[in-house]
Amino acid sequence: MNKPMNLPAHVSIVEVGPRDGLQNEKQAVAAADKIALVHALQDAGLREIEVTSYVSPKWVPQMADNAEVMAGITRQPGVRYSVLTPNQKGWEAARLGQPDEIVVFGAASEAFSQRNINCSIAESIERFAPVVESALAEGVRVRGAISCAVGCPYEGEIAPERVELVARLMRQIGVQHVGVADTIGVGTPRRVQAALDAALKHYPIDAVSGHFHDTYGMALANVYASLEVGIATFDTSVSGLGGCPYAKGATGNVATEDVVYLLHSLGITTGIDLDRLIDAGQGIRAALGQANGSRVARAMLAKRAA
Amino acid sequence: MNKPMNLPAHVSIVEVGPRDGLQNEKQAVAAADKIALVHALQDAGLREIEVTSYVSPKWVPQMADNAEVMAGITRQPGVRYSVLTPNQKGWEAARLGQPDEIVVFGAASEAFSQRNINCSIAESIERFAPVVESALAEGVRVRGAISCAVGCPYEGEIAPERVELVARLMRQIGVQHVGVADTIGVGTPRRVQAALDAALKHYPIDAVSGHFHDTYGMALANVYASLEVGIATFDTSVSGLGGCPYAKGATGNVATEDVVYLLHSLGITTGIDLDRLIDAGQGIRAALGQANGSRVARAMLAKRAA
Repeated sequence: MNKPMNLPAHVSIVEVGPRDGLQNEKQAVAAADKIALVHALQDAGLREIEVTSYVSPKWVPQMADNAEVMAGITRQPGVRYSVLTPNQKGWEAARLGQPDEIVVFGAASEAFSQRNINCSIAESIERFAPVVESALAEGVRVRGAISCAVGCPYEGEIAPERVELVARLMRQIGVQHVGVADTIGVGTPRRVQAALDAALKHYPIDAVSGHFHDTYGMALANVYASLEVGIATFDTSVSGLGGCPYAKGATGNVATEDVVYLLHSLGITTGIDLDRLIDAGQGIRAALGQANGSRVARAMLAKRAA
Repeated sequence: MNKPMNLPAHVSIVEVGPRDGLQNEKQAVAAADKIALVHALQDAGLREIEVTSYVSPKWVPQMADNAEVMAGITRQPGVRYSVLTPNQKGWEAARLGQPDEIVVFGAASEAFSQRNINCSIAESIERFAPVVESALAEGVRVRGAISCAVGCPYEGEIAPERVELVARLMRQIGVQHVGVADTIGVGTPRRVQAALDAALKHYPIDAVSGHFHDTYGMALANVYASLEVGIATFDTSVSGLGGCPYAKGATGNVATEDVVYLLHSLGITTGIDLDRLIDAGQGIRAALGQANGSRVARAMLAKRAA
């Protein structure tokens, strides 16, 4: 047999359920429930939480309570609270909430960029330059998300060169960390590794993260394949928020519980208490009146009940 | 980054849905529907199909129609039809159906062996010796399934040494191929690799297969990890038969569609037509009145409908 590769000893989880997850849930969630979710997550040991987004409520009504949610959180030392900022206006609003980090984004697909925000990839990143500059000047960290990093709904497969382009442009404007995001969940291990390698041409290994959606059930295999190339940061969504587990073609983020279970089983530390994490997921799913989308949560809850 | 490992160029899929899958469905399935399933599977390119089991209908009423199903199949050249035989009596009944292969089994857990069949691991394998001898004398292949190969409901974690013991005992009685079966779905990549390595001490790489259940959603990561140690045969169940996708703690086999999708994406050939495979799965799920348990099938059906 081949010798197993060395995997990272510790992995950082960026919990994106409150933002990427809830933004993709059709149903409204009260600000109090979102705040309770953030509290439950930090109590479970999460140290990076993407809380909300400062986008126009016209486009994303689910995040209209961004200021209320940010103000309502009882912050814990050592926890990094991040928010999505789509533009200068979003940053101006976001800074009032005193986030530790902002997230800017760009698609690795020219067609997606054109259709979604009506400009080229290069223009879309350039527009973020003043936002990044301003944030860094105030001591706020800046993370970049490279969406459509493996596939695009319009273009199909995305070449790693596109990811490399976005990574290079983000690096140029001062973005400190990039996430390689398979936002439509079509990635498989080798393609994901190729996309990560492309980003690694412009960022060191500890400044690149993996972000996978589980549309085809490949997300955990992709996480494992990412660990093999040394990636040690992943975006995940508690209880798989953002995709209804029972919907046809559900496209939710990979569940935090499932990733944590995999990591712990590989002897990789995360600092997260899996049982409390499951409770956090159950809490928000109860608020939504939905079943839990994490297979690990479902299996462990069945065991608890037995 | 680490260099990606060499993966097998071709993988053989052993479709166990008609047997392992349907045996674990509570609801009755007509023999005609089972036969139609086998036909659909071979039309999709499956070359190894575990058709039925010759166990007492008192214990497994779902398989009481074994003779009818075996007699009803229009066999295709190049397809291997296998059946489960729990003992001498099962083999005597099974041989009348002229299977190409029989499957014998033993648990890697002493506690499971004692509670399930009231004898030790060693005794359980020894009892199969005359069955194996008789089958081989008639030119029937013999495959062995090592159940509880990673974990046991009574003992918890199973040491690789137990798997090695069962593999050695099976080798001694003439079993030609062994499947390392995580029958309760608690396996994770490194533990699965350790169990496979244990079996590989007594069997060559092309005589060892992986058999994973998706209880914790880890099955595809385990398949990927198995490929890395060179394993090129997997048991899978079309549409995830055997586990209701919506049940708490569902423990079904990994879905054939999901494994085939992963393999093809890695550039590994299987000889299977994924679209026809999805149709086969839809056919049996329609007969059961159930939703499809394969994520790939759900995603691709949603795409077809769009």
